[in-house]
Amino acid sequence: MTSSPSSLATVAHPTLQSQEIGASPNKRDGSTVYTLPVLSGPNTGALITDSWAIAVYLDETYPEKPAFPKGSRGLIRSFDSAVGALLRASLEFSLLRSSQILNERSKKFFINAREAFLGEKVDKWSPEGPKRNAHWEALEQKYYGSAKIWYEEIEGKWVMGDTFSYADIIIAANSFWFKKVCRDDEWKRIASLHDGRWNKLLAEVEKECNLV
Amino acid sequence: MTSSPSSLATVAHPTLQSQEIGASPNKRDGSTVYTLPVLSGPNTGALITDSWAIAVYLDETYPEKPAFPKGSRGLIRSFDSAVGALLRASLEFSLLRSSQILNERSKKFFINAREAFLGEKVDKWSPEGPKRNAHWEALEQKYYGSAKIWYEEIEGKWVMGDTFSYADIIIAANSFWFKKVCRDDEWKRIASLHDGRWNKLLAEVEKECNLV
Repeated sequence: MTSSPSSLATVAHPTLQSQEIGASPNKRDGSTVYTLPVLSGPNTGALITDSWAIAVYLDETYPEKPAFPKGSRGLIRSFDSAVGALLRASLEFSLLRSSQILNERSKKFFINAREAFLGEKVDKWSPEGPKRNAHWEALEQKYYGSAKIWYEEIEGKWVMGDTFSYADIIIAANSFWFKKVCRDDEWKRIASLHDGRWNKLLAEVEKECNLV
Repeated sequence: MTSSPSSLATVAHPTLQSQEIGASPNKRDGSTVYTLPVLSGPNTGALITDSWAIAVYLDETYPEKPAFPKGSRGLIRSFDSAVGALLRASLEFSLLRSSQILNERSKKFFINAREAFLGEKVDKWSPEGPKRNAHWEALEQKYYGSAKIWYEEIEGKWVMGDTFSYADIIIAANSFWFKKVCRDDEWKRIASLHDGRWNKLLAEVEKECNLV
């Protein structure tokens, strides 16, 4: 079970929090790490680590509104892989901006952990210039460009056409991440891409998931 | 519309053949190239270039046995991307073996075209040693390892559980490619992976598609 790049970005120092409540660790590259998110289910007493495992648990426990419509779970797992691989190409930029919205203590932990993960010091992650430009190109053309192709394969507002799924949550969650951490002009750049469809999708998913 | 790595491998010199019958060219990295496969539909007179476009056309023309079950086409497109990205990591080895089963004229064209694509001379593609070992690791652990995760997400013999889809064709077609071009001991190595599931899947897809 691997985590998505977005969870790498949003977790500041999960070890203590996760361990304190007795959550299971996650495996990453052979080593044991405690990660967020962790779900503590009040109705069942379940304590689940990892975004994917949480979504699967919720789907099995509350099947009336499935995140994985019948037969789609393997495909959505591959969707998650494809998205993760595409996001990787601009991850240094996303992590840089993520580090900049944290408080000092979290920021220090976050940067140290990501420097180890990326094998590069924070000032080398995404300096303005060719490297930053390459990150934008990857984000706009590869990541959102591919997402556009997937969304346009069939008619309807969701990846699965008329049927909402976890695939839409993945794309919207990443847009929400960028909205949260990017500077205003940077988010505007993403929000205006492809006639504003990613900002619209974010709003649609928020509505669908009763987040607003 | 991008082609899958397998079409890069199986096409020897498609330009003449495709142009002769009046097929449309494909776009690749901005340049116009003629590629195989091309479908000439005897019932409709359609002439379709590109594996994906052919599958979509067949699905729309003959909907009684869909390759893309309802709502799945965007997800299967992302599945295709994920598979392509994973195969890329061992592509030099696959192309080397592909070149070795061609006749002299095709071999010459194939190697020249792929040397330009890969930016490396054929003897550097996958020499025995660390590079070859890395290709095997990518193929066994990343490509088939990821496929295993996707297949095991839901119960049933197909990626979509009980429902056969184009996703299964993609995986089986790649296994068929390896079976065709690899040496006996190499194919045995793939065929015995994960308790022989990829060889079994290949046989199941051949049966499902009436290829045997």
